[in-house]
Amino acid sequence: MVKVIALYKKPENIEQFDRHYYDIHVPLVKKMPGLKKFEVDSVVSSPGGESPYHLVANLYFDNHESLKNANSSEEGKTAAKDVNNFARGLIEVMICDVNCP
Amino acid sequence: MVKVIALYKKPENIEQFDRHYYDIHVPLVKKMPGLKKFEVDSVVSSPGGESPYHLVANLYFDNHESLKNANSSEEGKTAAKDVNNFARGLIEVMICDVNCP
Repeated sequence: MVKVIALYKKPENIEQFDRHYYDIHVPLVKKMPGLKKFEVDSVVSSPGGESPYHLVANLYFDNHESLKNANSSEEGKTAAKDVNNFARGLIEVMICDVNCP
Repeated sequence: MVKVIALYKKPENIEQFDRHYYDIHVPLVKKMPGLKKFEVDSVVSSPGGESPYHLVANLYFDNHESLKNANSSEEGKTAAKDVNNFARGLIEVMICDVNCP
């Protein structure tokens, strides 16, 4: 399984960010073809001092081919474009292989 | 559900890090009481330039109480202590509320 992890740094206006994220961005992500699971982690605390991150989004796909197809789909492009509307400069994306040891 | 996310920055010696992580640290984590699911994400690429991270560990617990019990258990203390043996200065930990929107 393959996972996209999007780390969102703490925005200046958390309420405004969350409203856009959950009301607009989440429905766009859920339209991406091939998306198998979608998990959003809301950072509550960080034992080593304040975390720079506010949210962690986890998008699961069957494999890298499936993720590639999702990203090049109209739905994928729309979701990617929407990031600029609420999280410009706040997002760090990683493509990962998932392992349940 | 509650999740501990451990972000591990890229170590100098990846082979040595991975050997300790999978052979020694993973079995210690899996002994933590109340651990419901354990997922390790290996960072393959990052669209926005090279990611500073090498691995992302996801430890799932039923709730914050259960996580607290795990951390204060002997097994939890042993796993936490082991981090210093292979990832000193490389780890960033976040406690999160998990949401499947």
